[in-house]
Amino acid sequence: MDAADPSPAPAPAADDSSVTRSLKPAIILVEPQLAENIGATARAMKNCGLDDLRLVQPRGGWPNEAAWPMASGADSVLEAARVFDDLDSAVADLERLYATTARHRDMVKHELTPRRLAAEIHGHAVAGARSGVLFGRERIGLLNDEVASCDAIVVVPLDPAFTSLNLAQAVLLIAYEYFQERDETPARVRIEADSRAATRDELRVFFERLEASLVENGFFRVEEMRPVQWRKIRNLVLRAEPTEQEVRILHGILSALEGRKRPR
Amino acid sequence: MDAADPSPAPAPAADDSSVTRSLKPAIILVEPQLAENIGATARAMKNCGLDDLRLVQPRGGWPNEAAWPMASGADSVLEAARVFDDLDSAVADLERLYATTARHRDMVKHELTPRRLAAEIHGHAVAGARSGVLFGRERIGLLNDEVASCDAIVVVPLDPAFTSLNLAQAVLLIAYEYFQERDETPARVRIEADSRAATRDELRVFFERLEASLVENGFFRVEEMRPVQWRKIRNLVLRAEPTEQEVRILHGILSALEGRKRPR
Repeated sequence: MDAADPSPAPAPAADDSSVTRSLKPAIILVEPQLAENIGATARAMKNCGLDDLRLVQPRGGWPNEAAWPMASGADSVLEAARVFDDLDSAVADLERLYATTARHRDMVKHELTPRRLAAEIHGHAVAGARSGVLFGRERIGLLNDEVASCDAIVVVPLDPAFTSLNLAQAVLLIAYEYFQERDETPARVRIEADSRAATRDELRVFFERLEASLVENGFFRVEEMRPVQWRKIRNLVLRAEPTEQEVRILHGILSALEGRKRPR
Repeated sequence: MDAADPSPAPAPAADDSSVTRSLKPAIILVEPQLAENIGATARAMKNCGLDDLRLVQPRGGWPNEAAWPMASGADSVLEAARVFDDLDSAVADLERLYATTARHRDMVKHELTPRRLAAEIHGHAVAGARSGVLFGRERIGLLNDEVASCDAIVVVPLDPAFTSLNLAQAVLLIAYEYFQERDETPARVRIEADSRAATRDELRVFFERLEASLVENGFFRVEEMRPVQWRKIRNLVLRAEPTEQEVRILHGILSALEGRKRPR
């Protein structure tokens, strides 16, 4: 290429993260009655990194100022929300479509849990296909023909005695599972604050000192019981998984108590 | 025992299900500001089979009629809710205690996801121990000393850019994971409606008829392409996993189209 070529450099290829971003699922509310629910939906979406909200004939008109307070700051989702006259145009660009609904025993459909839906949506995205999830009207849900236009049904497993979910709560559970599917937060992790986990050697030194102090101070009254009692004490301390700083605190406690005892 | 012994039969031993029921976790709201949130909390709890709601100094007093509309029928939870003057008395009977909170980098604590918490709560119940989950004030959450009184912290993994959850939404996510942990809903199941899955033999008969009909009607124009095209057609039909009734519908469609074609 001529060094003086004035044409701009080619645009960088979209990186993987931007491709994934554009394949995040759309949330489609069909004829929502209350703008408050649209606001709460936006909040739940933003909690979980979703940003494509589509409204099919919202009953209270749009934009509707009652939505904003319930969004609690998820304004970007509300501002980007799009309104459609009918369901077909709302979902025209999507490849996969799911209906959230109570059980429909009269249609031959696959019924998914929200967790499975999340896995499927991510799977479709890997294959380059974009998904949408339909949520019905507050009182009557989705019509049969609307459900029939979807690839599968999503049903949230709840106590059969009380399955009534608010619209935004249903959106939250679907969006939550979508976020969890790829989130890498460890299931259980220890916050170390300003210390670090104690090493086995730091623990050994403390245990040797503690045992010697207990022997010296007559804690073990019956020699045969000593091994069992000592194991119990070690288990108690080890279950707490002390930090290096906490081992120093334990040394300090021991020093203080030994010091108090001697003068008696 | 004397057959005429008038003493009542011994009470039946509590069965496993009743033991499990009594070990369901308690939900403890610390100084909730809005009765509406208490109502929405009750609804989320009942969705997930929880019934032990404890209120520590609810700011609007209790009972508060603003809670009932938001409970949407979860009245039993509200009616059984108990009010306490302080946190210690609210949790006195519990063996395990968890704090829902944003990250606390200044305490050495284990931090759990809601999913892991659900597994732990069920594990404690198997060992006979009952858990409680603390939820803090709407604006300022839990105080440091309240967090320190808990065994571990629970943090909901959400988009770091927008982690603000409504109180009842936080309860819903915790209760939802608790319910999912033991729920046995299959991740993906086919609703069969009034039919049943077609057998391989019913599919084979249909495919043989379809292939013969396509051959007879000149669908396969290039003989070398026929195996590939036929595989594509079979894959399309099989991906739909047809029911026995749907195979009959497909036969009917074939009959109708063959009938229409002949007169031409």
